[in-house]
Parts: sequence; structure tokens; C-alpha cells
Amino acid sequence: MSASVSVCSSVLITGSSRGLGLQLVRQLAESSNRPATIIAAARNPAGAPHLQELSDTYPGVHIVTLDVDSEQSISSALQEVHSILGNKGLNCLINNAAIGRTIDINAVTPEDMMQMFQVNSVAPLFVTKAFLPLLQTAAAGQSAGMGIHRAAVINISSILGSIGENTGAGANLKSYAYRTSKAALNMVTRCLAADLGSEGILCMSLHPGWVRTDMGGPQATLGVEESVSGMLSVLGSLSETDHGGFKDYLGHTIPW
Amino acid sequence: MSASVSVCSSVLITGSSRGLGLQLVRQLAESSNRPATIIAAARNPAGAPHLQELSDTYPGVHIVTLDVDSEQSISSALQEVHSILGNKGLNCLINNAAIGRTIDINAVTPEDMMQMFQVNSVAPLFVTKAFLPLLQTAAAGQSAGMGIHRAAVINISSILGSIGENTGAGANLKSYAYRTSKAALNMVTRCLAADLGSEGILCMSLHPGWVRTDMGGPQATLGVEESVSGMLSVLGSLSETDHGGFKDYLGHTIPW
Repeated sequence: MSASVSVCSSVLITGSSRGLGLQLVRQLAESSNRPATIIAAARNPAGAPHLQELSDTYPGVHIVTLDVDSEQSISSALQEVHSILGNKGLNCLINNAAIGRTIDINAVTPEDMMQMFQVNSVAPLFVTKAFLPLLQTAAAGQSAGMGIHRAAVINISSILGSIGENTGAGANLKSYAYRTSKAALNMVTRCLAADLGSEGILCMSLHPGWVRTDMGGPQATLGVEESVSGMLSVLGSLSETDHGGFKDYLGHTIPW
Repeated sequence: MSASVSVCSSVLITGSSRGLGLQLVRQLAESSNRPATIIAAARNPAGAPHLQELSDTYPGVHIVTLDVDSEQSISSALQEVHSILGNKGLNCLINNAAIGRTIDINAVTPEDMMQMFQVNSVAPLFVTKAFLPLLQTAAAGQSAGMGIHRAAVINISSILGSIGENTGAGANLKSYAYRTSKAALNMVTRCLAADLGSEGILCMSLHPGWVRTDMGGPQATLGVEESVSGMLSVLGSLSETDHGGFKDYLGHTIPW
């Protein structure tokens, strides 16, 4: 997470039982200038042996049960996270939990659309709303500047959510529900950016690349390590100019 | 609808009981080179006396009951529209039915988000899917070119759904649910454009301006007549270059 990480003391990652979320926890925990507190949130930690291993191996990796789709679970997780962090607040919230699959025009159902919207667009907004007091505390603890050293909301989006790129070869992958939910998430990012910028909370959308996870499939072009290394490098160098932006794991801006 | 209207023989407008939908029906019915068949779809026609008046006054204005949020209602409406149009197909589907209100970060609930997504983003997709065979018939009846003379899906979106414009002064109006649902609709437009372009069906998003309707409120800058005149002029001049685009009622392109 480059030099900036040394001043980022806490990170919370949703959906950390596997895939990119798990790898984010791993590479953060292994990094030399790591955040002191890494909160790995997962819907069902009991079913995530690799996450348990990381927590057993590295100090400061706290596993918290969080079903992003449940108001009650969010509320319980907030209490637990608050007790872990004390009065220091939360520097970086990474909304990573998501679902996705390929669904073309013939197969897509209203239920597909609603379900992905719920998990991929609505849940990140309400997780952010719930943890906002902790982000505000962290932001208020620094007088100026923006970045993960202060307070940030990172929404893991996708280039498939880019409306501008969904044309020509960029439109080959058909996924009405996933694409729509990620475009909606990008709007959530911008709404949050407009509201939280003045409080010193950076908000952005981040595309991890096409990664060989359960979601990305075996044909994907990137390994999880390469994707996460790139994302952590981007996160470590965030500043005011990135607020309200949409970047990929290499730091390149993606059109809305 | 300018010169091109003379070759557009059928239009279907959802949400035509009031506001922009009602005015679209009125100005289409009153225009000198009007479509022969104007199908005014409304959730509850019995509660729409102005629409009934238009249908009584002008020939070829057919009122069809359509709750865009109900699979069964869509299916019934499709049968009725098919019997009205016979084998000629449908030239222009205007997905106008929508809901909206101002909701800031403190007030917004998951239910607000889900409800507006259902009506404003998901319903237009499934109305379009249902009426696709009629659009395909119309498109196949012309060998080349794109526009409402052949076949078109017009999604009534909003500049509030522009992710790019949601910053600075453009972000003053706080409406998490509405903005998100319209950004999602714009992605639906692009998904449809990618899939239907090769069949000769033009798909676009259209921003009507900020209009003094029940939704726009009394402070809005435009009367319904001015907005609808502009939109009909844009619709009348659509061609290949507008496919997959996002324009306002004056024909100006809006960023995604």
C-alpha cells in the first residue's frame, strides 16, 4: 500500500471470506507498513477457514460477522467494530462484498436485477451510512488533506459498470443485472462524494481488473495477487484529486 | 415531431395519465403529421379524465391499462396492443412511467432505493422485452436506417441520472434513490443498444428538462409544452448517430 499506509491505522473490508476480499486482508496483513487494525468482515466467518488462518497468523486482524444485506447484522457489526477501534475512528472502508454472473437479455429476470441491485448498490450505501460516524471521527482527527491516512470509502466497482464503455467490444460480456448494479453503485459513489467531501472523507469507485476468482472465472486475465497489489498501490496514493473518481487497479481513470 | 413523424405510424407511451406522458399523447395527437396509432398506456386509466378526453377527441388514441411493475399487466397490455396494431408492429416505445422525489443521505432507506429501481430501471427493461417482438416486426419492415420511422426504444431518463454531472452545483439536488435509478436506467439503455442495434432498433435515453409537473414541482424551469415540443423535435430527427446516446430535450448530449 506504498508509503501512505504507515499512517492508515484501520481498514474494514466487506466480503472478505474469499476472492479479492480475502486477498486484500492477506496482503494488508503481510505488508511491512500495514494498518494496525484490519477488520475482515464476512457474512459467514465459520465457513471461511482461510480467513480464520489469517486471523490466527497475523496480529490485529479481526474477523467480524457482517451480512451487508441485513440492517440488523450491520448494526451488530458496527457495535463490534466500535469496540475494536475505540475512539480512533475508521480510516478506510472498502465495500467489496458483491455478487455477479453473466445474464443476457433473454435470461434476465426482474428478480436478478433486484437481487444484484440490493447487494451491489444498496448495501454499500447503507454499510457506509452505518459506519459514517467512525469515518467522521477519523476524518476529524486530521485537519487537512484527503486519502486513506484520513478517511475514505472505497466502492469496489467494475469496468462492466461503465456506461460509456458498454459499446462495441466493451459490450461483448452480457450481464444486464451486474452491469446495471455497478453503474448504480458508481452513482452512489458520486452522491456520497458530494455529501462527504467537505468532511474530509474521500469517496471513489475502484475496478479491480478481470480477476481469476469464483466470480471472475478461470479465463480471467489477472491473478488475485496482481489485482490486489495494484489496488493497494492505488489506495496508498489517493489524494484530493481522486475524490469522486472511478479508477482501475493500475490507477487509470475509467469513464462513467 | 418534425418531418420524420409522417413515417412513424405507431407510438406507445407508458405513464400517460398525467405530466409528461399525458402531454406527449396530447401533442402527438394534435400534430399535423401525427402517428396514426397512439397508444396511451396508464396504470389506472379510470383515474385519468384528461387522458379519456384526449382519446374521445382524437381518433387513433388508444388507452391501454399497463402497470409497468406487473408482469401480468404487461402481458395483458401486450395482447391488447398487438390486436390494435395487427401485423404492422410498433415503431416507437417511450418508457416514460417513473416515480421520484428528493431524498437526502439522512432520509434515504433501502426501501426507497429498491422501489425507485423497480419502477424506474427494471420496469422499462421488462416492458421493452415484452414489446420487443412488435418492435422487431416494425424494424424488419424497413430495410435500412434507424429512427422512429423504423423502430426505437426511448427511455425517459434525467440529467439527475448523469454520474458525470453529479458534482459541484450539479450535485445540489439530493436524491439518492432517483439519481441511482436513472443512472441504472442509462445502463439499461446501453445494454439494449448493444443488443438491439443490429436488428435496426434504436435505443436512447432522453432527459426532458426540469419540468413543472407533479414530479418536477412548481419551481421547475420548463412548462410541459416546451419540454414535449423539444422532445418530439429530437425524436423526429433521430438517426443512427443517436443510437445508444443520452440527449436532452434540446438535442444536447449529456455525459453518462
